[in-house]
Amino acid sequence: MKALVYGGPGKKSVKDVPMPEVMEPTDAVVKVTHTTICGSDLHILKGDVPTCEPGTVLGHEGVGVIESVGAGVSSFRAGDRVLISCISSCGKCDYCRRAMYSHCTTGGWLLGHTINGTQAEYVRIPHADTSLYRIPPGQDEASLVMLSDILPTGFECGVLNGKVAPGGTVAIVGAGPVGLAALLTAQFYSPARIIVIDLDDSRLEVALRFGATDTINSGRELAAEAVRLLTDGLGVDTAIEAVGIPATFQVCQDIVAPGGVIANVGVHGSKVDLHLETLWMQNISITTRLVDTQTTGMLLKTVAAKKLDPAQLITHRFRLEEIMQAYDTFANAAQSKALKVIISA
Amino acid sequence: MKALVYGGPGKKSVKDVPMPEVMEPTDAVVKVTHTTICGSDLHILKGDVPTCEPGTVLGHEGVGVIESVGAGVSSFRAGDRVLISCISSCGKCDYCRRAMYSHCTTGGWLLGHTINGTQAEYVRIPHADTSLYRIPPGQDEASLVMLSDILPTGFECGVLNGKVAPGGTVAIVGAGPVGLAALLTAQFYSPARIIVIDLDDSRLEVALRFGATDTINSGRELAAEAVRLLTDGLGVDTAIEAVGIPATFQVCQDIVAPGGVIANVGVHGSKVDLHLETLWMQNISITTRLVDTQTTGMLLKTVAAKKLDPAQLITHRFRLEEIMQAYDTFANAAQSKALKVIISA
Repeated sequence: MKALVYGGPGKKSVKDVPMPEVMEPTDAVVKVTHTTICGSDLHILKGDVPTCEPGTVLGHEGVGVIESVGAGVSSFRAGDRVLISCISSCGKCDYCRRAMYSHCTTGGWLLGHTINGTQAEYVRIPHADTSLYRIPPGQDEASLVMLSDILPTGFECGVLNGKVAPGGTVAIVGAGPVGLAALLTAQFYSPARIIVIDLDDSRLEVALRFGATDTINSGRELAAEAVRLLTDGLGVDTAIEAVGIPATFQVCQDIVAPGGVIANVGVHGSKVDLHLETLWMQNISITTRLVDTQTTGMLLKTVAAKKLDPAQLITHRFRLEEIMQAYDTFANAAQSKALKVIISA
Repeated sequence: MKALVYGGPGKKSVKDVPMPEVMEPTDAVVKVTHTTICGSDLHILKGDVPTCEPGTVLGHEGVGVIESVGAGVSSFRAGDRVLISCISSCGKCDYCRRAMYSHCTTGGWLLGHTINGTQAEYVRIPHADTSLYRIPPGQDEASLVMLSDILPTGFECGVLNGKVAPGGTVAIVGAGPVGLAALLTAQFYSPARIIVIDLDDSRLEVALRFGATDTINSGRELAAEAVRLLTDGLGVDTAIEAVGIPATFQVCQDIVAPGGVIANVGVHGSKVDLHLETLWMQNISITTRLVDTQTTGMLLKTVAAKKLDPAQLITHRFRLEEIMQAYDTFANAAQSKALKVIISA
């Protein structure tokens, strides 16, 4: 079958690789109908993720149709249409029993990382019973790919960890796909104000269209000052860090109100300064999280109830044979204005 | 009246100062029967707290008898025996309505900081109705001074913020009075293990006597390694930072388990490194807090029910006229083995 294979830092290619097979009784093999590319795939290609070995098929997001299941799989059978979670979880270990699936002792982020992923015609899914979700009939399946990773990530790591609440004030630092996913799902909880901060005017325009009440271009104005003006000098109850660099984490420290939360979503490559000399007495929390995808089922219901439209996040569509072009488009988002690209079989 | 007056960095003296009077209708004047010295008083004397002006009477802890009240005070009258909270709070502002009394817009840490404090014969207490607690009959009043600050601080900033829970594992970094206050109150929630880490063997001995299950002298062994051995390699669910320097905050980052909490209690004078390059995916929380003393009433009940013995924290007793000697004893705790000193009228 055809697949996008990581060849070591800076290298990727479409290759013919062997079809995956059921290896454990709890596995399923899924024919991938739609997949996408994530910022993490670009991180791998930069060489930032040494745990991903050359030769690995990339991709951890997708929907598809079950091709075959192992003898231990009881919830799914061949022909079922499924959403693939970016997190594989056994459902049995101590972490899974606490719904902290990201740290499953035999799971976690495996797909397109330590085992072959979804940017292929077929993919093997470990722990299928607890890592796949049945797609209700009548759904736009391509758009549900947004529920594999970015919507639960924005929601769990940003909105839930950030304790977004009715009447509250929220700032989202970074209007990339995950920041926008936080913006969409923050609105479940009716905050009074959602301020989106980014350097790119076109992304800020998208943010306004997606429900931001205010935007700040931090290239043109001092973000902390602008947030203060918008919040009676208090700062925000929730500051969502959706970039992953020291400068944006600093903005969050500058704008969080006493009693507020900094919810880190960004993937960081280096340490940051934490200003405890001022924050020690500010009654704040800082949270971190690798998405657990414990809310995937809930998010599927919000889509079915039309409270969430994941299709909005999709800007470009490609066929699997065009995946190299899809990577170019996604990697050059400043020019292409890409949010998420869909790659279909 | 006699009072201990701050004279600028490095300077303090016992002076004759005017008796305090009711200035606002919500004030009470309290005759101080017992007070104590806090690490914050030493910080002020080092010149670390520029908001405290020379000429201020120090001290924010104490018990006493009400001398007089303003016309707006309805819960207390002259002759009532009261516990003084280190935090003054109006009970009416937005922060107070959220029980975040430490950030009261007309209160917070005032006593011995921005107004005259308790190391004196008398003290004026603003917002008396919501900043004093009636002492039940039959209590050892001197020991209740421990409820003015250190017990609520250890409990709220360490134990509650740290989500100490039955069966959980806790590490307390720093076995000074506040770390020990966290140790005593952590036991309300029956954690499986409470590991206390310090450089001073005599404080570690006290910790064992106060209920620690394990102690680590971080001068002799690598704390992170020792904690790992005690916790099946996982780290602790709750790491309580009770020192306030970068090195001890680093220990907390090294020992917190995935899904755990670092509850900062220490007063920090400089920024620290936060290792988001590893912690971003560890599903942890970091909390900060200036004590709100919202649990003072609850702690009084635990003392009455003999679930908490605050007298254990008292090692030395002085009269008010010996307060300079009390400062020497408290400031040289390594030699004197002082935990808390009581200064009585």
